[in-house]
Amino acid sequence: MHEVAHAPKVPHIEGHFESTATVRDIVIGLSDGLTVPFALAAGLSGAVASSRIVVLAGLAEIAAGSIAMGLGGYLAARGDAEHYVSERQREEREIVERTHDEEEEVYEIFERYSVDRASAAPALAALKENPTAWVDFMMRFELGLEEPAANRAHRSALTIASSYVAGGFIPLLPYMLVTGNLEALKLSVVITLVALALFGALKGKLVGTGWLRSAIQTTLIGGIAAAAAYALASLLNGSHP
Amino acid sequence: MHEVAHAPKVPHIEGHFESTATVRDIVIGLSDGLTVPFALAAGLSGAVASSRIVVLAGLAEIAAGSIAMGLGGYLAARGDAEHYVSERQREEREIVERTHDEEEEVYEIFERYSVDRASAAPALAALKENPTAWVDFMMRFELGLEEPAANRAHRSALTIASSYVAGGFIPLLPYMLVTGNLEALKLSVVITLVALALFGALKGKLVGTGWLRSAIQTTLIGGIAAAAAYALASLLNGSHP
Repeated sequence: MHEVAHAPKVPHIEGHFESTATVRDIVIGLSDGLTVPFALAAGLSGAVASSRIVVLAGLAEIAAGSIAMGLGGYLAARGDAEHYVSERQREEREIVERTHDEEEEVYEIFERYSVDRASAAPALAALKENPTAWVDFMMRFELGLEEPAANRAHRSALTIASSYVAGGFIPLLPYMLVTGNLEALKLSVVITLVALALFGALKGKLVGTGWLRSAIQTTLIGGIAAAAAYALASLLNGSHP
Repeated sequence: MHEVAHAPKVPHIEGHFESTATVRDIVIGLSDGLTVPFALAAGLSGAVASSRIVVLAGLAEIAAGSIAMGLGGYLAARGDAEHYVSERQREEREIVERTHDEEEEVYEIFERYSVDRASAAPALAALKENPTAWVDFMMRFELGLEEPAANRAHRSALTIASSYVAGGFIPLLPYMLVTGNLEALKLSVVITLVALALFGALKGKLVGTGWLRSAIQTTLIGGIAAAAAYALASLLNGSHP
């Protein structure tokens, strides 16, 4: 909040749409990658004797999670791009075929901001002189759609997947290196909570929600998810001797 | 695409922002819930003898994944809401304290759509008569921010988490009901791929990308993630006798 309020205005706006997408992808991948394999490993470590199975399950989870999230991000970004193109083509048709309706829509957009017809008329006249600009205007102001960056889908998939893998290895390392599930669990809890706190603080700095609050929130999510997985696995393990 | 192109125009626009958020939450939760526990269970079933461990790991994954994604969705939605409020307060201050700069920004916004200063002036004059409308205008047209629906954060968290749980139980059921890991794996693959195809088709219908293509994509993601997890777990299991 602090950072946002003091950032220079124009760079902030320009930076807003550019960086949000990539930062969001890293945040999505890293927060789930740090949290879910951590919670799964913690849960299993209380229920199975061998740390081999914990590592195996953790790595299988990282493979499954990074692919599912990466491909999911790819399709979501491609879907956004296609949605933009198809809506744009529709607007291009409509300003030609249903010019009057589209003019009325421009008046309606301005009316929502209490700009009356007479005050909106000169702007509409200017838009009508440049059909491309008019379509741009309708895309943004009628439909609220931004043109997605080119290659967004590939970049999004790779960013999410690699962030997930990077995050997922942190909680698993102790189970690979330390003998004894309980020792590994303790070490995994410590390093992962520290990693979650650091990641949360950095995220809070970047997104502008305040580093301390973000650090606490991120750590809590990981902790709660791990505690729930641990409790569930212990419970089921107890009932199934 | 078909549905979108033929929907009545105004309801389509209004419906656009309302439904997208909830549909997106269901899609996020269900696609990951169907995919990751499925892939994890498939991966483990090739590496461990007991279906008890597969079920245990699967349920721990569902607990961890649904909590991590649900809480993550909650914080993301709350962050959006707070971001909107803080940016709005800044705009409210700025139209009072830096009126001239904000007027120039309105001209710049119109210029991007090749509306010259003279044509934009009457609209600006009308905006200046209603400060609330002017702030609304800047929020939408300068910053591209929509006001998030009230209670969005809670709803988002619950929708994502319950969709994840619902999706996650489908691939695990066979391991709970059928004896023999290989039999359970076969059944899990069949019912989960069918579920992914149905879910993908429905998603394609709702989002308007075409049901067949969406069904194929969704099924492929799940299949690829499961195959990768299976291959990885088998490989690691082979190297660690």
